[in-house]
Amino acid sequence: MVFEKAEFRERLHKTKVEMQKREIDILISTNPANMNYLSGYDGYSFYVIQGVMVLINEPEPIWIGRNMDVPGAAFSSWLSTENIIGYGDDYVQSNTKHPMHFFADVLIEKGVSNKRIGLELGQDSLSVTSFMELQKKLPDCQFKDASFLVNHVRMIKSDTEIHYMKLAGEITVNAMITAFDSIQEGVIESDVASGIYQSLIKGKEDQHGDYPAIIPLMSSGQKIAAPHLSWTNNAYKKEDIVTLELSGCVHRYHAPLARTAYIGTPTQKYLDIVNIVLEGLYEMLQVIKAGITCDEIARIWNKVIAKSTITKDSRVGYPIGIGYPPDWGEQTFSIRPGDSSILQNNMTFHILPALFQADTGFVVSESIRVTEKGCELLTNLSQNLVQK
Amino acid sequence: MVFEKAEFRERLHKTKVEMQKREIDILISTNPANMNYLSGYDGYSFYVIQGVMVLINEPEPIWIGRNMDVPGAAFSSWLSTENIIGYGDDYVQSNTKHPMHFFADVLIEKGVSNKRIGLELGQDSLSVTSFMELQKKLPDCQFKDASFLVNHVRMIKSDTEIHYMKLAGEITVNAMITAFDSIQEGVIESDVASGIYQSLIKGKEDQHGDYPAIIPLMSSGQKIAAPHLSWTNNAYKKEDIVTLELSGCVHRYHAPLARTAYIGTPTQKYLDIVNIVLEGLYEMLQVIKAGITCDEIARIWNKVIAKSTITKDSRVGYPIGIGYPPDWGEQTFSIRPGDSSILQNNMTFHILPALFQADTGFVVSESIRVTEKGCELLTNLSQNLVQK
Repeated sequence: MVFEKAEFRERLHKTKVEMQKREIDILISTNPANMNYLSGYDGYSFYVIQGVMVLINEPEPIWIGRNMDVPGAAFSSWLSTENIIGYGDDYVQSNTKHPMHFFADVLIEKGVSNKRIGLELGQDSLSVTSFMELQKKLPDCQFKDASFLVNHVRMIKSDTEIHYMKLAGEITVNAMITAFDSIQEGVIESDVASGIYQSLIKGKEDQHGDYPAIIPLMSSGQKIAAPHLSWTNNAYKKEDIVTLELSGCVHRYHAPLARTAYIGTPTQKYLDIVNIVLEGLYEMLQVIKAGITCDEIARIWNKVIAKSTITKDSRVGYPIGIGYPPDWGEQTFSIRPGDSSILQNNMTFHILPALFQADTGFVVSESIRVTEKGCELLTNLSQNLVQK
Repeated sequence: MVFEKAEFRERLHKTKVEMQKREIDILISTNPANMNYLSGYDGYSFYVIQGVMVLINEPEPIWIGRNMDVPGAAFSSWLSTENIIGYGDDYVQSNTKHPMHFFADVLIEKGVSNKRIGLELGQDSLSVTSFMELQKKLPDCQFKDASFLVNHVRMIKSDTEIHYMKLAGEITVNAMITAFDSIQEGVIESDVASGIYQSLIKGKEDQHGDYPAIIPLMSSGQKIAAPHLSWTNNAYKKEDIVTLELSGCVHRYHAPLARTAYIGTPTQKYLDIVNIVLEGLYEMLQVIKAGITCDEIARIWNKVIAKSTITKDSRVGYPIGIGYPPDWGEQTFSIRPGDSSILQNNMTFHILPALFQADTGFVVSESIRVTEKGCELLTNLSQNLVQK
C-alpha cells in the first residue's frame, strides 16, 4: 500500500468535516486526483465515467467504475470488496444507458435517495449530461456545488506525501540535468524530449517514475513565447533560449521545476532580465511561510520587477500535489494580486515566475513546502541560467 | 502547417452542415481534440478553460483561450490573428471571474447574443459551472446539446490524416518491438516503460513522436486482470503473461496496437485461448468493410468465442484518430452487440478483442482503415503470442 489505512481515514475525516460545514450528506467526486486521494485508486481509466462517493455516515467511500477496472481498484485502493462496484460495459460511451443511472441506483438501493448531494460542478470529469441524468434519477435529492472541496482538503500534506514529493523532486532534477547535458546547437528537440521521458520513467535507484500529469514543456527559439506547444524535429540553434518545465511523478505526486539555458553568449540586456527574475524568486522564497497570503507574495514579486522593464500578467505560483493529466496543480489558490488565501504549514507550491515575451523568455521555479518558519525547497538544483 | 487551409475549410464546411441539421447557429467546442480538428490548435493548455467557436455565417472559427496561449495558437492554427482571442490571467482558476463570461462578451460584441448555441454537454472539458455561467450571461440564447457533433465529423479521414496515422503506426511498431526485445525474467517493468517512452518520442527517422493520449498499458503477473494500472518496480517472473497496449502519435493522430508475450512455455490451455482470440480477430478483419454495422462485427466475434470457454462483456473496438489525454478513441461508435452504427469508407478503428480474466489474459489488436472493399491495416506487426 502506498499509504496506511489510517492516513486514508484521516483524509476521509477531513473531507466529512468540510461536507458537514457545507451541509452535504453525500459527496460524489469524479475528479481523478480527488478519487485517488479519497480511495487510493490509481488507474488510467478516466476517459470513462467513474467516481468515488463519500456518505457522511459510512466508514468507507464507495468506488464506482467500469467492470474492467474493478480489479485495478481492488489492487490500488484501501476499500473493502463490497465498496468497489463495477458497471457493465454497455454503459460505456452508450447512447442508451448512462453510468450516472448506475450511481443513482446504488444510492437508491442504500436507501439514501433523498439526501443533499455534493458534486464537483466546476471541475472537468463531470459533464453537464452526467449532472442532468443524475438529477433525473434522484428527484428527491438536493444538489449542491462541492467544486474543489477535496482539492482544498488535499492542500495540507502529510509526512508521507512530502516524502513522495521529495522523491519525485529527485527524479525531476535527474531529468533536468539529463536534458541540459544534451541540449546544444544542432541537437533535435524531440531527441531531448525522448531522453527526458526515459529519465522521468526510469527514475532513480529503487524508485521508478510514474507518468507526469503535464508533458515536458520546452519552449525555444522562435517559439519561446509559446510555452504549451510540444517538441518538434527542429534543431537548436546558436543564440536560442531554451526553457524547460517538467516534473517527476511518484505515486501521482509531483515536484515540478523550470530552468532555462542559453546556447551561446547572452547579451547583457538578457542577463539583466535573468537577474531580475532570479531576484524576484529569491525575494518570494524569503517571505513565504505559514500565515502569509498569496496576494502578499505576489506584491513582493511585483515590487522587484517594477525596477525593470519586465511586465507579467500571469500568476507566479500555484499549489501542487497529486495530479493526473492534464494538471499537476491543485487549482485552489493562485499567487497573484487579489488572492487573499492564506498559506498554511505543509502546503506545497510551485513558485513559478515564468516570463515569456514575444522574443525572449526566462523561466525559473522552485517546488516548496510551507513551514511555520519559512519555506523548504523540495528539490536541489542551481537556479542559474545554464550557458551552453 | 500540418494541414492545408483547404482541409480545414472542408472540416469547417462538414461541421456547419451538421450544425444546420441540428439547427445550431453557433457551436462552442471545448474538447481539445475537436478544437484541434477545427482550428489546428495544439497546446497542452487544456487544464484551463478554452474553446473554439464556429459561427454559421463566418468563414473562420474563433479561438478563445488564455493570453499566455495566444502565441501558441498563432503558431499552430490556421486562423487569422483577429480570430485568436486571449483572456487575462485573472480569469484563470478564479473565484471572481469566469472565462465563459469572456466567451459571452465576444458573442455580445459580435451582435449574436440571441442565437442557438450548441455545446458539448455530454463531454468533459465543459463543466456544469461553465454551462451555467454562459447561460447567465446570454439570457436570450437558446442552448442545444452538440455533444460528439465534431467527433462524428472527425470519423471519416482524409488522405493526409491516414498518412499521419500510418506514420504513428510505424512508431507504434518500433516501440512494441523495443519493448518485447527487452522483456524477460528479472527485468523491471518501469525500465521497459522507460524504453517504450524513449522510443515513442524519438520516433523514426525524419518523424519524431508526440505524446500519446494514453500511457503505455502494461498488465502482467498477478495484475494481469487490471489493464489500466501503470508500471511498477516489480521484475517480470517466469510464467508471466505480459500484455502491452500502446500507440505512437504524429500530429495528435494515433495508431494503437496491443500484443502479448509469455515468459516461458505456455500451457496448451492458454494457447487454446490465444488461438480463439486470434481467430476472432481474423474473422472480424475479414468482414469489416464500408456498409457493415458495429453490431454485425461484434456478432462475428461472439460466434467465434462461443466455441470456447471465453466470455467477454467489454466492447471489441472503437474508432480512433486525434487524441489528447486521456483518450485516443473518438467516443462515437462501439463495436458491440446492439450498436447499429454503420462503418463508412475511410473511418479508422482500433479492433481490440482484449481478454482479461482473473488469472489470465491475452490481448491482440489492429488499427485499421475501413475501405469500400475491406479493411486495411495501418501497421505491420505479427499478431502471434511472443514467447520469451
